[in-house]
Amino acid sequence: MTQDSLQNLPPIVDGRQSETALKVQRGCMRFLRAQHDITCFAEVPLANGRRADLLGVTPKGEIWIVEIKSSLEDFRVDQKWPEYHEFCDRFFFAKPPELAAEIFPESEGLIVADGHGADMIRPSGLDKMAPARRKTLMIKLARLGADRIHSLMDPGPSAL
Amino acid sequence: MTQDSLQNLPPIVDGRQSETALKVQRGCMRFLRAQHDITCFAEVPLANGRRADLLGVTPKGEIWIVEIKSSLEDFRVDQKWPEYHEFCDRFFFAKPPELAAEIFPESEGLIVADGHGADMIRPSGLDKMAPARRKTLMIKLARLGADRIHSLMDPGPSAL
Repeated sequence: MTQDSLQNLPPIVDGRQSETALKVQRGCMRFLRAQHDITCFAEVPLANGRRADLLGVTPKGEIWIVEIKSSLEDFRVDQKWPEYHEFCDRFFFAKPPELAAEIFPESEGLIVADGHGADMIRPSGLDKMAPARRKTLMIKLARLGADRIHSLMDPGPSAL
Repeated sequence: MTQDSLQNLPPIVDGRQSETALKVQRGCMRFLRAQHDITCFAEVPLANGRRADLLGVTPKGEIWIVEIKSSLEDFRVDQKWPEYHEFCDRFFFAKPPELAAEIFPESEGLIVADGHGADMIRPSGLDKMAPARRKTLMIKLARLGADRIHSLMDPGPSAL
């Protein structure tokens, strides 16, 4: 990604993702909204110190986490993805079309995405979160959304 | 507000508010974030058909609604503000400095704000929401935030 194209991105994109990962992110978010009525946050910090690439909320408050892997290396270096499970009801990997589906564990959901859209290759089983953790997470998400929008609306002083 | 200044506003501002109301909104949001660690959404549609001018979420999930009144007329024409109470734990009016505090009912909280900040003239009593309504609202807020950010990140097709 060139410096110039980075500058054209909206301020919410932090520039740490690869161009491939950004395309997968965009396609996944469109797909989840259009096909599953799931609204997604990108880059959600979790209480265990990890960041979820995508975290979606269904109309009934079910939480889906999608971990984007843009290359085999990207998948191999992450040994800690099972830690996402305690913060969601369903978990998926998402991959670009050129990456083989076989590298991902069959126990997890799988989405294939490009910059325009996505499709679900394998659904995820339901593994419901603890109610107290869901409640805490939902408050955090409401506050995260409000705070991100506020920072975009008013980049001025946040303290008086 | 001139056409030119409207064009300089971020896309989240819908242009229906007066310039005075926008200043009060901005000052209130800064104040609530800086002084009370409350993250605010602007223009939140509620299940009863009303829109909250500002709806804030505390770290513990308490909900504050702030109704902005930029003029005496603005306050007088609204007979239905008590309907906000069922969707929040604390309710406040917010006014610009030039508007008399005495026009507002003493039973409600009151904030004075300009475009830079705000101050609380009168606190609001706590009138806790029904738990089921709070739970539903928190899911709606999480989804509202995600959806607004998504639309800013990706103004492209939302359907495949």
